[in-house]
Amino acid sequence: MIDLVLVGIGTGNPDHLTLQAVRELNAADLILIPRKEQNKADLADLRQTLCKQILTNPACRIAEFDMPRRNTADPDYRHGVVQWHNAIARVWQETICTHLPQGGTVALLVWGDPALYDSTLRIAARLEPAPQIRSIPGIMSLNMLAAAHTIALNDIGAPFTVTTGRQLRDHGWPNGSNTVIVMLDGDCSFQFIPAKDITIYWGAYVGMPEQILLSGPLTEIGPEIITTRAQARACHGWIMDIYLLRRSEAKQ
Amino acid sequence: MIDLVLVGIGTGNPDHLTLQAVRELNAADLILIPRKEQNKADLADLRQTLCKQILTNPACRIAEFDMPRRNTADPDYRHGVVQWHNAIARVWQETICTHLPQGGTVALLVWGDPALYDSTLRIAARLEPAPQIRSIPGIMSLNMLAAAHTIALNDIGAPFTVTTGRQLRDHGWPNGSNTVIVMLDGDCSFQFIPAKDITIYWGAYVGMPEQILLSGPLTEIGPEIITTRAQARACHGWIMDIYLLRRSEAKQ
Repeated sequence: MIDLVLVGIGTGNPDHLTLQAVRELNAADLILIPRKEQNKADLADLRQTLCKQILTNPACRIAEFDMPRRNTADPDYRHGVVQWHNAIARVWQETICTHLPQGGTVALLVWGDPALYDSTLRIAARLEPAPQIRSIPGIMSLNMLAAAHTIALNDIGAPFTVTTGRQLRDHGWPNGSNTVIVMLDGDCSFQFIPAKDITIYWGAYVGMPEQILLSGPLTEIGPEIITTRAQARACHGWIMDIYLLRRSEAKQ
Repeated sequence: MIDLVLVGIGTGNPDHLTLQAVRELNAADLILIPRKEQNKADLADLRQTLCKQILTNPACRIAEFDMPRRNTADPDYRHGVVQWHNAIARVWQETICTHLPQGGTVALLVWGDPALYDSTLRIAARLEPAPQIRSIPGIMSLNMLAAAHTIALNDIGAPFTVTTGRQLRDHGWPNGSNTVIVMLDGDCSFQFIPAKDITIYWGAYVGMPEQILLSGPLTEIGPEIITTRAQARACHGWIMDIYLLRRSEAKQ
């Protein structure tokens, strides 16, 4: 029998680990980590660094696996994702069988929180026989964005919507909320909505040493974010960013 | 000069503290804690318990203060809240001046995350002279709810809306999201919306030893939640609960 623990590790700063996450990782027989790809993100090394920093149990082993690639040529986006998740589940299964033929506890490190725009839970549900799955909450990039700007996510008693760049671009401002948090946006999709009376709080690499923050009226700061983002991405070879848009109530 | 650190402490389980939160609390000269009220919540003791568990720096002092009460008779809800926040800021100011006349670092423990339906940031902004404010992210009850049910907050690539019981009751299902997370709901407001084709994931005392979880079709589970909630509240003298509602996509 396999116990599978999905551990939310926050946004790249080892200090964001919870005491629970540290304990769970140390209690695992095996930690699965995707192998670093050549010429890839500083990000890929972070899981290894983090494990080195917090693992104190010598019995806890780390196994690397080769992350399958998604077929981006698949015209059916959802189908492509499903196939990719199936492939990842197969690799996990093989790696677990190789290293823990008698069963045991396997941990996976998940950026942010396993519950937020992450596929780990869905991939884990494909394993056979079905493992016992537990999810350990982690600090999300949206918490870190708010903390970095020392702002609240919500106006007093008011709702907010969390969405993706694609949704904002294709469907515009979500009805019913004056606050929108946008994730997974490679295209600065804020430029596709009317900018008047909107304040943006933007952050890249939030919580990490490279952190960049910009905020202000979208009309003024939007273009600066586009330029800054492109430069930072070129400089680091990768970027993770997130932003909060707040519409002034008068425009409701 | 005062450095004010707002430390998100998660949902009541000391294991939810991040390594950063532990470090920041130990680095404070003074930690402000509201005094336990008579006949009040087990919750009130938790801050003290938590400090006992994680403080290792003997130089870090704890100061209790009497939390002012909100005038619930004020017919203008917002005005009542503003007056209450002013009163809290005055008490903080006095307590800080008494214990740290030469200035220093003051920490406040905030349930969940300082960015989510919490007034600490707004109250802190009233202090004069203005302190240097930092916010330390914490695990939110919505993370804990998702982890406890081992579900994702979002459907693949889809948005979700976080709102309050009052909003759901007064304005119905928020447009644009098939997933709604409801907080601050003392009235089981899910009973005021059409229940068909909605799945509910409910949790009370999430992440704590008292945790209760219920999930299923809202038509079936809704009434059970209402009963369970009333019993648990009577039993413990207080309740904190949260739920996620997911509408099946066919009904979009």
